[in-house]
Amino acid sequence: MGSVQVSDLKKHLGETVELRGWQYNRRGSGKLLFLQFRDGSGTVQVVVSKKDVPEDVFETAKRIGNESSLIITGLVTEDTRSALGVEVQLKTLRVLQEVHDYPIQITEDVPNIDKLLDVRHLWVRSRTPHAILRVRSEVEQAIRDFYYQRGFVLFDAPIFTPASCEGASTLFEVPYFEDKAYLTQSGQLYGEAGAFAFGKIVVFGPTFRAEKSKTRRHLTEFWMVEPEVAFLELDGIMDLAEEQVRYVVCRVLERCKEDLKVLERNTAILEKVAEPFPRVSYSEMQDVLQKLKAEFAASSDPELVKLSADILKNGLGDDLGAADETAVGLHYKRPVMIHRYPSAVKAFYMKRDPANPDYVLCVDVIAPEGVGEVIGGGQREDNMDLLMKQVEKHAIPLQSINWYLDLRRYGSVPHGGFGMGVERCVQWITGCQHVREAIPFPRTIYRTNP
Amino acid sequence: MGSVQVSDLKKHLGETVELRGWQYNRRGSGKLLFLQFRDGSGTVQVVVSKKDVPEDVFETAKRIGNESSLIITGLVTEDTRSALGVEVQLKTLRVLQEVHDYPIQITEDVPNIDKLLDVRHLWVRSRTPHAILRVRSEVEQAIRDFYYQRGFVLFDAPIFTPASCEGASTLFEVPYFEDKAYLTQSGQLYGEAGAFAFGKIVVFGPTFRAEKSKTRRHLTEFWMVEPEVAFLELDGIMDLAEEQVRYVVCRVLERCKEDLKVLERNTAILEKVAEPFPRVSYSEMQDVLQKLKAEFAASSDPELVKLSADILKNGLGDDLGAADETAVGLHYKRPVMIHRYPSAVKAFYMKRDPANPDYVLCVDVIAPEGVGEVIGGGQREDNMDLLMKQVEKHAIPLQSINWYLDLRRYGSVPHGGFGMGVERCVQWITGCQHVREAIPFPRTIYRTNP
Repeated sequence: MGSVQVSDLKKHLGETVELRGWQYNRRGSGKLLFLQFRDGSGTVQVVVSKKDVPEDVFETAKRIGNESSLIITGLVTEDTRSALGVEVQLKTLRVLQEVHDYPIQITEDVPNIDKLLDVRHLWVRSRTPHAILRVRSEVEQAIRDFYYQRGFVLFDAPIFTPASCEGASTLFEVPYFEDKAYLTQSGQLYGEAGAFAFGKIVVFGPTFRAEKSKTRRHLTEFWMVEPEVAFLELDGIMDLAEEQVRYVVCRVLERCKEDLKVLERNTAILEKVAEPFPRVSYSEMQDVLQKLKAEFAASSDPELVKLSADILKNGLGDDLGAADETAVGLHYKRPVMIHRYPSAVKAFYMKRDPANPDYVLCVDVIAPEGVGEVIGGGQREDNMDLLMKQVEKHAIPLQSINWYLDLRRYGSVPHGGFGMGVERCVQWITGCQHVREAIPFPRTIYRTNP
Repeated sequence: MGSVQVSDLKKHLGETVELRGWQYNRRGSGKLLFLQFRDGSGTVQVVVSKKDVPEDVFETAKRIGNESSLIITGLVTEDTRSALGVEVQLKTLRVLQEVHDYPIQITEDVPNIDKLLDVRHLWVRSRTPHAILRVRSEVEQAIRDFYYQRGFVLFDAPIFTPASCEGASTLFEVPYFEDKAYLTQSGQLYGEAGAFAFGKIVVFGPTFRAEKSKTRRHLTEFWMVEPEVAFLELDGIMDLAEEQVRYVVCRVLERCKEDLKVLERNTAILEKVAEPFPRVSYSEMQDVLQKLKAEFAASSDPELVKLSADILKNGLGDDLGAADETAVGLHYKRPVMIHRYPSAVKAFYMKRDPANPDYVLCVDVIAPEGVGEVIGGGQREDNMDLLMKQVEKHAIPLQSINWYLDLRRYGSVPHGGFGMGVERCVQWITGCQHVREAIPFPRTIYRTNP
């Protein structure tokens, strides 16, 4: 008898099958035991009836602790109350390893996330992280399929780089033989070289920021997808970002139904991605935020009143703050695109808006529900002289950026793209509280273990 | 008129279309110019006829250098000699940037790879690297599809790790705030935690080895795919490796025909992956190599005689050498699986063969044509006591490996997997000479630039 997967059990209704996996939990005692049995593909209830199995089997099933590894056989019967539609009546039980002191308790009212992250290698077996990380896996494959189907060439940017793209203060420096190197903060500059070679490319890999911020919103190591397209201008970049976010969210809604149920995710707000994303300029958004500030201040909800105080705290011309992004999410209730920020708050490579050179042709996508910016991108400065001015203004060492300037010397064309942080996206889709839960082994200023 | 892609031109036969891209090359002079026009999706010949265009257009077309960026319009006509089946009769020409001093010459008889890698950001536009990297993109998507279709969960292992898996001498150490961390050499140990949570997972990301070897066969940064499966034993691991290699190679043969033509790749040897891969134990292989050594020594081919001298140089009980792998490839002419190596030459986590504990239940896959090992893997030691002995023998610090030992404390089961280096695989499939050509921006002991 070959073994079957829990997720396939429904196809074996009425059959006796072999299952291989672990005891997730157990209840019952006297004459009837109910094992929650997991094998990674799903969890099924296994009923152990004292009258149907030899006494030693019943005693073993009663004794072993959670996460004992087992090979069992049993009859698959219908169970309309379970998500799978089936349960299993135990026939035989083989214990590979009997466990008694598994360090994670299933029923912790207020989970201590730091304590759980200390045993992340075990915690990933639990229902919630299991569901979140299955969604992450689907999100990443959806992203890869989205670009592959559209003819983008996957273009892996290097991790070791000679210089900074997003600011030297958050660079990880690595001793590199007799020299030194830096861990990439973004593959974009390399992606631009790729776009000029392949027309449209996508970079997708881990990126690194030595974030000293202790807000716990940040990871030092996170995955980013960065498409870059030759001859694509701001409107097209916004179209691409919107289409990609919609594709990914719809695919999770379609293929991760059970996981979203486990997470008790309210999917109504996710389903709103089907509607067009509002596109609002930074300048227009200032007015919107003014109105929201007044509206929230007058609210009877003390949370909103509190939020109101922090709206537009940064002042005109500055980047938006976390409260602004939260307010935008509350107002529009779906992803919002904010375009044309003041050039002063954006990176050196962003293209000036010909209509008003104090602003750049950029776009941020803000996810609702307090998640904030999930995408940042825009058109790149394709004019060599204007780009050089910015390189000088930002005091970027010429010898480290000279190769990049070659892209403007030899066949420069309008182009652009964006970067989406995978963990932020997963955090939003799953509704998990901490971005640290959206990656298998999160790395922060405090943690490189396990 | 919307612009079209070169790769779609055949659909527009008889139409006047707009193309956006770059001049790749030009020949002709007097009355007829032939531009090779590329847009990343392909290259098409554009005919500029003096009698059909205004004089200034002809003069411009005659003057501009390679990699000038252009927007052109022209009539799509049939051309049976071209791979695309079409060429374009130029009507209008708009020069975005006129280039005259593009640093790469198209026709270099003996390309100087080091010089070309200095301008890798431009070299990726050239025919050969363009084709190799398109194959790489297909290989990576094929790998992702292979595992996704089989229900594997993508499980991103961390890049920052607390300790070494493959040997401390090749670790990159990174100052990490007040502490230090190490760049991952393999995601396997984390993948094992994932397999116990999800049943079957795949890790796929960059890995790092501070290889001081100057053989140029090594990269300091390379991508590795590492499936890991609970309850999978050696035979199943070999089945999975064989099936995956076959899937990837067949998919490239099917979808990258034009790229393989550009690379003048002899695909006959690739097509042999359809046949079963020989599975030979290390001990049996010693006999095979003895015979090959004698056979090659008696050959009339001086290359084989030379190779013969290096066969079995390492002696019984040692790992195979490069000459051994080359000989194996020459003999079998397709990927070969060598299993059950002496435990002394393999990593601490490999499971002992119960039939002979001097050997481990491992497998290496050797690609032919001198490429050598592309896959290494096997069953992991699932017995806590036996594993502890190896940890002690290898003097692995307990505090850095303790979390991993938890996987043997709490529900240990038989399991295994393997790692395949993407660049080696791409090198073999494309037949490129240097592994450095198989990644967009190769990193070696000498190079972190551009």
